[in-house]
Amino acid sequence: MSEEALKKVSIVVSKGSLDGVYPGLIMANGARMEGIEASIFFTFFGLHAIVKKKMNNLKVATVGNPALCVPDAMGMAMPTVLGAVPGMSAFATYMMKQEMEKLDIPPVGEFIEMISDAGGKIYACKATVDMFKLKDKDFCPQMDRVLTVGEFYELSAGAQIIFT
Amino acid sequence: MSEEALKKVSIVVSKGSLDGVYPGLIMANGARMEGIEASIFFTFFGLHAIVKKKMNNLKVATVGNPALCVPDAMGMAMPTVLGAVPGMSAFATYMMKQEMEKLDIPPVGEFIEMISDAGGKIYACKATVDMFKLKDKDFCPQMDRVLTVGEFYELSAGAQIIFT
Amino acid sequence: MSEEALKKVSIVVSKGSLDGVYPGLIMANGARMEGIEASIFFTFFGLHAIVKKKMNNLKVATVGNPALCVPDAMGMAMPTVLGAVPGMSAFATYMMKQEMEKLDIPPVGEFIEMISDAGGKIYACKATVDMFKLKDKDFCPQMDRVLTVGEFYELSAGAQIIFT
Repeated sequence: MSEEALKKVSIVVSKGSLDGVYPGLIMANGARMEGIEASIFFTFFGLHAIVKKKMNNLKVATVGNPALCVPDAMGMAMPTVLGAVPGMSAFATYMMKQEMEKLDIPPVGEFIEMISDAGGKIYACKATVDMFKLKDKDFCPQMDRVLTVGEFYELSAGAQIIFT
Repeated sequence: MSEEALKKVSIVVSKGSLDGVYPGLIMANGARMEGIEASIFFTFFGLHAIVKKKMNNLKVATVGNPALCVPDAMGMAMPTVLGAVPGMSAFATYMMKQEMEKLDIPPVGEFIEMISDAGGKIYACKATVDMFKLKDKDFCPQMDRVLTVGEFYELSAGAQIIFT
Repeated sequence: MSEEALKKVSIVVSKGSLDGVYPGLIMANGARMEGIEASIFFTFFGLHAIVKKKMNNLKVATVGNPALCVPDAMGMAMPTVLGAVPGMSAFATYMMKQEMEKLDIPPVGEFIEMISDAGGKIYACKATVDMFKLKDKDFCPQMDRVLTVGEFYELSAGAQIIFT
């Protein structure tokens, strides 16, 4: 039998929108709940999910999802081009947060705390930290270490890499 | 020789735009054509690709691709900011569908039927199904099962996970 | 000890914005610097990163990153909706290029040359080449081969596939 159960995942979160960040968090949390080793490497705009001042203010990227903005997905008749109108992202964000709460999916900050408490590792990408000129004090306390891409690969030995 | 041929892929489709959905379908179909086991896990906005009322109405996300909207890629001189103008996504969508057809790449609904007929598995993400309040009857008949993230990991034993 | 070091990565670049292309290039370059075998498969809009006329004119996709456009990330107070206003993508692009340069990250064309010189392989997706009606002469000289999805899977034997 060649199908070995998955033992370890290395999740890369590279997008900074609310809908860009949640999939990686949900996959990391799901892994920990299955006893799978999990770490998350936050890079590019995704880094903001672990920056204290930003992490709870992420927005839904409606404009990148023309046919499928949240309000529409929820059955409301709304021309999809409204995604580009001021305020619509805020509205979609508000609705997504409401729906997440109903599913017992916590806000980003709490979710990261939960994953960290469950043994998940939280890493920040060094090049991005330098690019955004961030300091240690800018990050949430769950951030374990700043890693170079090379160190990320080393820590991903034996892991399934999932780039989100 | 340590390079073992790929035997199984677990593809996650998380985006709902036409250009967000096709790569996953093309990779799943290509895997089946090579005799590689393939399953697709539709989550977040990507779930709409298997919802009957939505699957054949997905649009190209021109605004998220500022320099490279389809018309421009096809050599027409068009200011890229037009991506944000009403109708442009519809136009890019029309052109992309035309080009897909010329390459014998079927519309989303038919493509999923083809992948399913070839033995590919079609899964829906439970949290997303709950969030969008969808019922079994809302899905195309090819949808095999609704899975939790944990079940997805179990079914991905021995597979290469590809998050698109 | 079951954790075998990563030996090979197959990176798929599917997005055509500057912030969509860089992560794949950075991961390929980081792999080569660690002695990890690396190839990049450019597909969909990502293909433009190896098209001579396009590769050095990619733009930041500000509108897809509503809360986190580059200027804002750099601490400037700017309403995020401005991402949709003509010129803002150009401005974010200018700033991102500046920051990349400070980090010694080269422009896309040079970066691909560097990865290729370091032994990384550069592949173009056949279906996309056909869709955009591109010829061999349209590509940068580092492009090694045009591959079908099936050939991509074959060449990815033993590799970690990373879809960006």
